[in-house]
Amino acid sequence: MVILVLNCGSSSAKYQLYDWEAKDILAVGNVEKVTLKGSFISHKAKGKEEYVVEHDCPDHTEAVNLIIKLLTDKEHGVITDMGIIKAVGHRVVHGGDKFIKSVIVDDDVMKTLDEVKDLGPLHNPANIMGIQAAKKVLPNVPHCAIMDTAWHQTMPPESYLYAVPYDWYEKHSVRRYGFHGTSFLYTAKRAAVLLGKDPYKTNLIICHLGNGASVNAVKDGCSFDTSMGMTPLEGLIMGTRSGDADPALPFYVMRKAGLSAAEMESALNKKSGLLGITGQYVDRRDIQKATLAGDARAKLAQDMEAQRVKKYIGGYLATLGRVDALVFTAGVGEFAFFIRKKILEGLEGIGIVYDPKKNDLACTRNTETLISKPESKIPVYIIPTDEELVMTEDAYALMAGTYDVHTKFTYSFQSKDYVNKGRAEGLKEELKKKPDLQSVIAVPK
Amino acid sequence: MVILVLNCGSSSAKYQLYDWEAKDILAVGNVEKVTLKGSFISHKAKGKEEYVVEHDCPDHTEAVNLIIKLLTDKEHGVITDMGIIKAVGHRVVHGGDKFIKSVIVDDDVMKTLDEVKDLGPLHNPANIMGIQAAKKVLPNVPHCAIMDTAWHQTMPPESYLYAVPYDWYEKHSVRRYGFHGTSFLYTAKRAAVLLGKDPYKTNLIICHLGNGASVNAVKDGCSFDTSMGMTPLEGLIMGTRSGDADPALPFYVMRKAGLSAAEMESALNKKSGLLGITGQYVDRRDIQKATLAGDARAKLAQDMEAQRVKKYIGGYLATLGRVDALVFTAGVGEFAFFIRKKILEGLEGIGIVYDPKKNDLACTRNTETLISKPESKIPVYIIPTDEELVMTEDAYALMAGTYDVHTKFTYSFQSKDYVNKGRAEGLKEELKKKPDLQSVIAVPK
Repeated sequence: MVILVLNCGSSSAKYQLYDWEAKDILAVGNVEKVTLKGSFISHKAKGKEEYVVEHDCPDHTEAVNLIIKLLTDKEHGVITDMGIIKAVGHRVVHGGDKFIKSVIVDDDVMKTLDEVKDLGPLHNPANIMGIQAAKKVLPNVPHCAIMDTAWHQTMPPESYLYAVPYDWYEKHSVRRYGFHGTSFLYTAKRAAVLLGKDPYKTNLIICHLGNGASVNAVKDGCSFDTSMGMTPLEGLIMGTRSGDADPALPFYVMRKAGLSAAEMESALNKKSGLLGITGQYVDRRDIQKATLAGDARAKLAQDMEAQRVKKYIGGYLATLGRVDALVFTAGVGEFAFFIRKKILEGLEGIGIVYDPKKNDLACTRNTETLISKPESKIPVYIIPTDEELVMTEDAYALMAGTYDVHTKFTYSFQSKDYVNKGRAEGLKEELKKKPDLQSVIAVPK
Repeated sequence: MVILVLNCGSSSAKYQLYDWEAKDILAVGNVEKVTLKGSFISHKAKGKEEYVVEHDCPDHTEAVNLIIKLLTDKEHGVITDMGIIKAVGHRVVHGGDKFIKSVIVDDDVMKTLDEVKDLGPLHNPANIMGIQAAKKVLPNVPHCAIMDTAWHQTMPPESYLYAVPYDWYEKHSVRRYGFHGTSFLYTAKRAAVLLGKDPYKTNLIICHLGNGASVNAVKDGCSFDTSMGMTPLEGLIMGTRSGDADPALPFYVMRKAGLSAAEMESALNKKSGLLGITGQYVDRRDIQKATLAGDARAKLAQDMEAQRVKKYIGGYLATLGRVDALVFTAGVGEFAFFIRKKILEGLEGIGIVYDPKKNDLACTRNTETLISKPESKIPVYIIPTDEELVMTEDAYALMAGTYDVHTKFTYSFQSKDYVNKGRAEGLKEELKKKPDLQSVIAVPK
């Protein structure tokens, strides 16, 4: 039996096919430029070379058709028949406050997702299109919605409310929702395993740093506060998103530069963040290269990015009171050692002593690493995220009727003996080239 | 010789008259409802009863005329002739990035203040009117502008820039300015005295909590970061101001509730904060009363207010690396022990151990107090602010030609032996009623 997970953006459709019995990934891929000219798919089947082919995808239905076609293709495929797919898990960015856990999508769920569409205008319409498309192509299996926001529904009101007129909350659902929930769920559970602690007695600060980025304060194993807010614009400095800013700033600039509300909202989402500061770069590797070449604005962007993360780490340490581990995850968190370095430097005063050598070594998705010094009051882990696995397990359990909210459900990766096969194989290869990596591998206590 | 300081709001004109030789306050007062119907002055001369009288003030010139009339009045006055006033210090909220210190107001300064008016639309027009009015009434003395923003000009770019398109900074001066600078200057210098440390080797976190509120991270005696931003809207939850919020929030609510940009900006400034959460209260005493009476929204407002301050304290501790003291000041910081309690509870993890009994006792403007336990790594002081004294000393020194930026200038209150006469007298009286207060009085090391 296999489970398909889908993550549809406005012009993309990422997928992963998972063999439930073998506990192994069969294929991963992405259809890019969906609805645009020149759409193409990059498809990587287990044990085969990556296969890239152009294919016109005027809508998401065609993209899902293309995915199924390749998955069942004689040459490039991994399954003989799409009937082997027993459930589909869909990533949905914004679930509003209606969902505290993943659900099987029925008409009511579709209606609710449609109702909260305005809260996630950049993501939800595409997520909904993806579900509709996949239901057309695979009508006879359960389709499950795995919401980024569900994990954060445990936040207390003092974390999720804004200090704005209360009736905006009552009438318009204005509140903090938080995102990257699936990633935080995975890394929080894994951190408890590494710490050898009861997850519900574990306090964590998790930095999910990717192109989008947010920090999560986890109290007794549940989300307590997070830096993204009503939308994914708030909080950290991101690739093109401003993160925190004076709420009066947009109004002043609109007046001064003659921008409309829509233009301003777009500028804060798409022309700000690291792109706004550097004037040209979004990718942290480009920024690092520019910094090393003496570009002052690139260095400034890194300093600002790191300072923002530092502030959240300190802030959440203050509100949590006690923190058992600091965790980095997602692309930048896993690989950008130069950003982690800037974040971690000078945190001794709050009990975080990182090891610069270990930090430099720990750039991998193949293993969990520990980069703090033994004397660090708060250990610092890097835990490569695995949102697809959470989605797969949720979809499977929903289908099998064994699912429940995360506080009443145990994931496979909550075991000390859990092994991600693909990563374990990758690690073997990586260690041949970088034997020093061995010294930073984190072992469950 | 006496110095007059003036703090003009859109419908008010606060003043203080200071006897330079005697180092003593001669009179304080406030003209309220300036430009409105029913304007009146509350005037308190040293050693006399408070005097309140209605007087029509259609503009700020009439308000300044009224102040001078009362100051020189036979019955209620404290000076015989307005010629004794040798300099006037004016509070100016927003100085943009043109001023790193106080200045004598000339045509160039007036022009610059006019240029930055758009950055402080709620405050600066009134500040400018106040200066113009006072120059008319007292044309032969130097008028000095003491800017709230000047203190914060030492912030590094990573603190003062936003992650928005860089040309907004270059073209429209979009950046963090910070406010309450005069209060932070006073309390930072006093904290160094209490700590017995070189002010330029002192790191502090100062919470100025009043109706408007902000936190200042002070590094080596200079402002390093602060919670208020381009305008006084950002940062902490205030009486009617939202403080931090998702920058996308206003746009969503504008669409949903059909508000214009001007209506939204006004709602964030005037209908949000504690008023927004509670639906009815601005004053922390009213909120505390309601909380004790079981009002859940009042308690929520307090929890949110305290959590926001906690986050800034932790955040600045992380970015400063080392903090020599945590300081509370301004009305709420000095008196609202119930808010301080919520802020200080559970901060042991970051080295702050407050003494609940001392915290409850320390509600006075008459003395500096120490409310942390001896084992607290970071001592917690309450330092009643004195912005008027800074303004007075700046105005005097500007007139006398002895003034310079605060890093090259020494204020009277930087001496271990400095005594505020009025407060010392007030303390004597207070100790008669509350002898326990003695146990929390802070003594310079």
